[in-house]
Formats: sequence, C-alpha cells, structure tokens
Amino acid sequence: MHTFDFYNPVGIHFGENSISKLTHELEKFGPNVLLTYGGGSIKRNGIYQAVLDSLKAARKNVFELSGIMANPRTEKVYEGIRMCRDHAIDFILAVGGGSVIDCSKFIAVGAKLDGDFWETLLIKQESMGEALPLGVVLTLAATGSEMNATCVITHWQKHLKLAYEHDLLYPKFSILDPIYTYSVSKSQMVFGCVDILSHIFEVYFSAPDTSNVSDDIAEALMKNVMENLAVALNNPRDYTARSNIMWASSMALNGLLGLGKEQDWMGHQIEHALSAFYDVPHGAGLAVVHPVYLKYICQKVPKKFVRYAQHIWHLDRSGKTEEAIALESVEKTRAYFKSIGAPITLQEVGIPAEAINEMAATVHPFPTSYAHLTQEDVKHILQQCLE
Amino acid sequence: MHTFDFYNPVGIHFGENSISKLTHELEKFGPNVLLTYGGGSIKRNGIYQAVLDSLKAARKNVFELSGIMANPRTEKVYEGIRMCRDHAIDFILAVGGGSVIDCSKFIAVGAKLDGDFWETLLIKQESMGEALPLGVVLTLAATGSEMNATCVITHWQKHLKLAYEHDLLYPKFSILDPIYTYSVSKSQMVFGCVDILSHIFEVYFSAPDTSNVSDDIAEALMKNVMENLAVALNNPRDYTARSNIMWASSMALNGLLGLGKEQDWMGHQIEHALSAFYDVPHGAGLAVVHPVYLKYICQKVPKKFVRYAQHIWHLDRSGKTEEAIALESVEKTRAYFKSIGAPITLQEVGIPAEAINEMAATVHPFPTSYAHLTQEDVKHILQQCLE
Repeated sequence: MHTFDFYNPVGIHFGENSISKLTHELEKFGPNVLLTYGGGSIKRNGIYQAVLDSLKAARKNVFELSGIMANPRTEKVYEGIRMCRDHAIDFILAVGGGSVIDCSKFIAVGAKLDGDFWETLLIKQESMGEALPLGVVLTLAATGSEMNATCVITHWQKHLKLAYEHDLLYPKFSILDPIYTYSVSKSQMVFGCVDILSHIFEVYFSAPDTSNVSDDIAEALMKNVMENLAVALNNPRDYTARSNIMWASSMALNGLLGLGKEQDWMGHQIEHALSAFYDVPHGAGLAVVHPVYLKYICQKVPKKFVRYAQHIWHLDRSGKTEEAIALESVEKTRAYFKSIGAPITLQEVGIPAEAINEMAATVHPFPTSYAHLTQEDVKHILQQCLE
Repeated sequence: MHTFDFYNPVGIHFGENSISKLTHELEKFGPNVLLTYGGGSIKRNGIYQAVLDSLKAARKNVFELSGIMANPRTEKVYEGIRMCRDHAIDFILAVGGGSVIDCSKFIAVGAKLDGDFWETLLIKQESMGEALPLGVVLTLAATGSEMNATCVITHWQKHLKLAYEHDLLYPKFSILDPIYTYSVSKSQMVFGCVDILSHIFEVYFSAPDTSNVSDDIAEALMKNVMENLAVALNNPRDYTARSNIMWASSMALNGLLGLGKEQDWMGHQIEHALSAFYDVPHGAGLAVVHPVYLKYICQKVPKKFVRYAQHIWHLDRSGKTEEAIALESVEKTRAYFKSIGAPITLQEVGIPAEAINEMAATVHPFPTSYAHLTQEDVKHILQQCLE
C-alpha cells in the first residue's frame, strides 16, 4: 500500500427531505448567494422552488446563473465570475449534477483570482490562494463532484477538457435526496452509472496489486451499483435502489477508493477528448472508451483482471490462461454496458474515424498509467472503439 | 437506506515515515503542547524520540502526561485537565492507541469545561461548547479513535465505562505509520483485530437489511482484516498486512460503515461491563461476548446471518433452514476468534459466574438494538459466555 494523505471535510445530508437542512447550512454564510443551475428541469420537478424557499428562509439576496450546459464551458465560468464581482457574492449554491457543480467550483476560485482562471490554473498550473465557499443540492448521481475538490471544464475553441483540484474546492455541504434523481431520464441514469463504474475502474486497475482495503471496497461498490441499477432500470422510483446509486456515486470519488494506489485515470483522459471535440455526454463517452481501453491493457497486466473476472463476474478460471480470463472479463464489461443501453462504439456517439488522430493528439498519458500507455497506444485504442 | 448526516474532517497522513508530516501539522497550533502517552513502550521503539524531535523542530513547549492505562480511568483525565490549566496548554498530542486517544479527548473537552466532565457530559449528558485541538500519532490498530469524534472512559469506583461523542473531538490530524505497529505483542494485535471486526459487526448486523452500500463495504473490510491478520500472525513485520489492518481499522469506525443503518452496538455495551468490573482488555472482552451475543440473536433475525454465512464464510446453504445456516455462521465466528488466540469464555478472562448479575445490571440495551434486547437477555448472554 502506497503512502497517502487524506482529507475530506464535506458535510453530507443524505435522504428524503434532506433539503430541510439547507436553511440552517446557508445561515453560516454571507447574505449574497449565487444560485447556479442548468436547464429548466429543476423548475418542472419542484426542486427549484424548494431551494428558493430555503434561501428565502435564510434571508439571502439571490442572484441566478442558469443554463449551465453538460460538459460546461469556460464562457459560463467567465459569466459566473462577472456576476460574483458585480454582486459581491458571498456564497455559491450549485443545484444540479456534476456539470453545474464543476462550473461553480471554477467560478468560486475564478472570482477570487487576479488573473484569468484558464491560463493561471489550467495552463500555468499555478496555485490559488482562496475561493468563495460553495454548497451543493445534488440532482444526478454520477460524477462524485458533490464530495470532492475536483472540477473539469471544457475550452471549446481549443477542444480541451481539463481538470483542476484544490482543497479549498470541497463543498461546505452537499444535500443528497435520492428522490431528486427520480426524474432524470433513463439514459442519464445509465450514463451516470457508467461514470461511477468508470471512476472505480480508474483506481482499481492501478498499481500496486498487493492486498489493499481500497480494492476490496472498490469491488463492493461495483457490485452494489450493478445490482441497484438493475432494480432502478425496472423501477426508476425505487427509493432503496436510487439511494444506493446516489451514495455509491459519492463514495466512488470522494478520495477513499484511490488511497494507497497510484491511480490510472486513462479512461477519463481519453474520454475527455471525445467530449472536447464532439460534446459527447461524459458517461456515454466512457461507455465507449473504458472497456476498449481495459481490453487493450489487460494482456499486459492480466493479474488484476483475473481477480476482477472472479470477484465481479464469477467467471470460472479452470483450464484458462490468465490472459484468456482477463480478456473474458473485459468483454463481459463491454457487453454489460451494451445491455444497460449505453453506446459502445464511436459511431453510436456520432464520431467519425477521421477524428481519431486529432483527438488522440490531445491526450497525454500519465507516467503512472497502469500499463505505461503512450500517445500511439491512445490512437490504437480509439481505432478499436470503431468496432 | 435510512436518512443520515456525515462529516469527518480528520486529516490522515498514512504510511512509512509519515511522522515527517508532524512538524508541519504542529506549526498550525499554539506553543504549549501536552504530550500524552501510555507506558514506556514508545521510548523503547524510538517513536517517543521521533515525536520529541518533531515537537522541537516546531519549537513547542512540551509538557508530558504519561502512564495512561488500557481502559483509561477518570483519574487520568482529571490529571490531564489540571496540567492543561496549569500550563495554558494550546494543543494535545496523543501518541498511542485508543486508550491514550480517548483519555486525551476527554482532557481536551474537560479542560474547557466549567463543571466536572463526568457529571456534565456523561451523567447529565449536557452539551459542550469548545475543546482543545488534538492530534494523534497512532501506535496500535484497533479502536478507530484516530479518525472519529468518540471516546470511552471508565469510572472505576462506579464500575461504569461510558462513551461520549462530539464533532469538536475529531483529531485535527492523525499520523498512521504501519511500522509503528510492528512492536505490539501478538495478543494486542489479535485483540485489535477482534475490536475492528466487532465494530463492523455492530453496524452490519443492524436494521434495515435492504441493499446498502455500507453493508457491502462492511463485508469487504471483514474479509480484508481476516486475510491480513493471517499474514501478520505469520510475519508481524509484513508491511502490506500491517498497512491493511491499520487502514481497515480507521475505515471500520470513521462513521462510513454505519451510514443508512440504525446501528446496534450491543456487543460493545455488554463488553464495557466486563472492562468496567474486571479491567479486561477491550478486544479480549469482545472476543468472549460478541460471538455469543450474535448466537443469541441470530435465531430472531436470521436473514442477515444467512448473507453473512454465504459472503464471509462461503457456507453451503443447500438443504438447510435459515436458522441453521445462521447458527453455523456465528459458530464459525467464535471458532475463528479461538483460532487466532483470543479468549472465548468468561473464565479465560478471569471473570467468575457470580459476577454476571452485577455486570448485567449496568447494561442498558438501546431501543434500536437489532433484536430488541432486554436486560434479562443480557444476563442470559453473559451466562452463555461461561460455556
């Protein structure tokens, strides 16, 4: 087990009607609140009104930034930063899924930054000194952003989707009501679960492969998500299933699963190119890329895949080589994604073969990647996503 | 899954030489430090000197409270409170296992309290307003106190061992170096692992029994601890095994495992009577009490035990009733504790049959206990611990 540091101070309020905790949480912060959200769905399902009621009870001055899109873009961050400065915002309340939360995190730091946030944080990778405090009302189980200090943003003109992390970006609180996820579409739920599973794969399939609590917990989460997605696909209003998916989503990316591990993150790195060029939903892109990526590397590092085959897919090892059983396990994974209605080829998400070289050129493999990937490998992986 | 709130801001530094982070952590606090520890073992194994070096590098004025015993007693808390007041202590650094940490937590709150800590917090159960900040250098994997806000103290004259919990008692940081646990005795390691497993049982065997991420993680931790204890018993200096036991210990009681569950804690409640009357090591008392307690209740709530039997002990269910397989699973548990060298009867820990009534009278079952235990049940359970 590798040496690690861990710190996660996010306060979680989980369960039906946990919105009742919002007013009390808001009272800890200043009067001017920037309320951020996406399209109009929260107005249709009543979440918007419940949030406004809490803001009113806490006597806040509310300014709204709406229309935050999936794969949020730098323009929206600049818009939010301007609002924070114009209205002397004290606190940001993000109501939505990972896109709204991530965009809001960049606004929280950008508003306190002298320079341009993209240049300073993402290109020069300079450190930040402060950020506006931020809270979350979650409406979609997928990214885990409600319980971590990471955020991802897309620069559409440059076709770059880059991530940033800083302890100051942990939400002060996150409100997780499983009922708030009832109204998301089937495909959003499926993409969300693919994202959760992908987060688990990123840390599970990484060095070292000696006994590690984190790997055991990773397997527990994988099984839980698959079991509960099956229930929720059948009945989207199953509270227990939605609760498990929602909490598993936070647990998958609150930092715990990667402890003691190098972590891989190549599935996400490659997918970010798909989103940055073709605005593919993140979970859909992962469903295409991640199983193919795992298939590509499983012959180089088969041992962990043998464990995965046995613990997750209960495959019989007898008479098979490590390589054969490893391959079988990743084929099972891809077939599983197909079975839950996720796309599994580039064609299905509208990306032509000609785009591969340009996309691959923007992906820079980490030196710690599990199978020591090169940029040439990335191209081959994307080519195999055509099949 | 039940509604829950979760918050755990403890900063963890884990791994070999994580003591190198201590000076930096100490610099965040005031100059006067109370260094608390147990017997002389940390002086023999070099931990004491490493801690003193860090304190010196951080230019602290160090005052020492040593001799904190297993099952720490109120007298030691009063001694620490006096020292905090006499020397205007700014920060408490606890170096040891759960006993040292728990005693230090009570000192941290007691030093800031106008009234008597025992009367105010444990008898009248009044709330506290502030506490001295506290940090931990852990030397024993067992109680999880390094990553939670709970502490337990014994009033020896009254034969009461009571628990207290408050968010202000989360350690500001905890330093977890698995090598620091190499020198603990075999029995301490075994008792520590029994304590870890017992913490997991307390939340796993509790309502509700519908699908819950927490239960899946609980099983992952149980398997990890048993697997790694077997390795560590064979080679106490196996870094990977010691790492897993140490981190599993923190994970078992940092609050995550109980989320969405009612939690039971009757195994611990009953054991506290053994410690409070006979100063039995906590883990030894749990090895005696917990399997017998589970055996007592498994016929009333067999369903979860069937799952436990299959997932943990891989028992074959075919042709057996739920009750039969449940019983088999708890017999396996008791046999396991015996196999690792833990005591499994009251006689083995020096408690006579005549003590049972007096001990049972101090145990007040929680209304949420898994099988709705009564005080009469407690007596029967203790009687069955004689066999």
